Amino acid sequence: MHKHISSLQNKFIKELIQLKEKSKLRKKTNRFLIEGLREISLAIKGNYSIEKLIIDTSVISMSKIEELQKTINYSIEIIEISNEVYKKLALRDSTEGILALTEGKNHTINNIKFKHENPLILVAEAPEKPGNIGALLRTADAAGIDAVFIANPKTDMYNPNIIRSSIGCVFTTQIATGTTQEIIQYLTANNIEMYGAALTASVEYQTINYTKPCAIIVGTEATGLTNEWLQKTTKNIIIPMKGVIDSMNVSVSAAIIIFEAIRQRNLK
Amino acid sequence: MHKHISSLQNKFIKELIQLKEKSKLRKKTNRFLIEGLREISLAIKGNYSIEKLIIDTSVISMSKIEELQKTINYSIEIIEISNEVYKKLALRDSTEGILALTEGKNHTINNIKFKHENPLILVAEAPEKPGNIGALLRTADAAGIDAVFIANPKTDMYNPNIIRSSIGCVFTTQIATGTTQEIIQYLTANNIEMYGAALTASVEYQTINYTKPCAIIVGTEATGLTNEWLQKTTKNIIIPMKGVIDSMNVSVSAAIIIFEAIRQRNLK
Repeated sequence: MHKHISSLQNKFIKELIQLKEKSKLRKKTNRFLIEGLREISLAIKGNYSIEKLIIDTSVISMSKIEELQKTINYSIEIIEISNEVYKKLALRDSTEGILALTEGKNHTINNIKFKHENPLILVAEAPEKPGNIGALLRTADAAGIDAVFIANPKTDMYNPNIIRSSIGCVFTTQIATGTTQEIIQYLTANNIEMYGAALTASVEYQTINYTKPCAIIVGTEATGLTNEWLQKTTKNIIIPMKGVIDSMNVSVSAAIIIFEAIRQRNLK
Repeated sequence: MHKHISSLQNKFIKELIQLKEKSKLRKKTNRFLIEGLREISLAIKGNYSIEKLIIDTSVISMSKIEELQKTINYSIEIIEISNEVYKKLALRDSTEGILALTEGKNHTINNIKFKHENPLILVAEAPEKPGNIGALLRTADAAGIDAVFIANPKTDMYNPNIIRSSIGCVFTTQIATGTTQEIIQYLTANNIEMYGAALTASVEYQTINYTKPCAIIVGTEATGLTNEWLQKTTKNIIIPMKGVIDSMNVSVSAAIIIFEAIRQRNLK
């Protein structure tokens, strides 16, 4: 039989709550929680190492757990928890009933391996909200681009809201984090052209040739890219806007430029 | 001096709380609440009729209220409320301190007047979340398209989360709601081509010529467009996806197709 925990005062449960809430602890221990069957499956697909499955059998059936285990070639400890404990650990009030304690990966830029000889990269500078990072990762997944770089991130990549809003794409997309300076150095050293989205640029995005190795760089909705980026890019580009609000959601802007790049690459 | 209310039991305050929460009451009374200075300003710009300003002077200064009043050529009753009452009426815990009781507009399809001879329209069928409608309206605003039609809406357009997520674009974009049948009839009668985004379509979106009057139609993230649409469109189109997740956020998909249409129209 599996271990069963029903007390919120249990030391292991207290640690998991901390892990859910504290970026620092996730970084220090290199551990994080994944919520939901689909997300856990994608982490397995992305070669993450799952350490423990924490399940609420009042919500999820053992047959689903067994199915999941079949996709892994190593044994995982299963811990049953009460519904009260599950609710404290889960982000969603929906009824997944499963969490996975998982080992993190190193998001250093030198680990990046491009899928294509002619890479297309998305760089986001200091995104304001975890939800924005998640949305960018969904777009990156759909577009099949080579990598997403987060410059000067405000959180680790295993923030529960990033996992949730990316619907697990955080596990299957190549991600690197670093300072703006590190990322500029890397792109320059690898001869990758840099196109910065800027509200003040005069070159319209659709006039650029994206068929060579290139990176599309987006800043925050509120303030856009910093000068550190704007001064180092190959060109700064703008999506012409005609409305009363002169900004778009950052994941929408990124998607418009990325899919224009892909359109051009498919024509070639 | 202005009327001052500090009791949550006050009849007028109770009505406002209902108005915030109940779509039915908004429809019945044709009244709704707008939160935030920016959103109220955009409603004024969109020729909405403001009936009362409800302010929390512990948060907002009278000079800002006076500035706002200068943009309106009719007099508006001002009601001061306590911070406790404000918190109950506001959606955001941020510190706007101002609400406007406002008269709704009729979103019937026959009121639509196109800005251009060659209209570009966005249709969204039964969007799941108010936040999705808000995001679509932001994209519509940025793209400067002629109108947004919501088919079989699940809420009225003055849902507080639509106002919030559209950052007020709900007041400045032409919007119509109707049944799918009504909208199809309207588009057909006006010789507007219909392109339905469908995960099962075989025609890639970028191969379509969008330079004639046309509508781009998107369904829900979960189930896509209904057959009622798919069978009546000029063509069904797909955004080719290469990832592990075979869906994108609906506002992202819509933006990719809309901006491709605009790119083509600018080339002409």
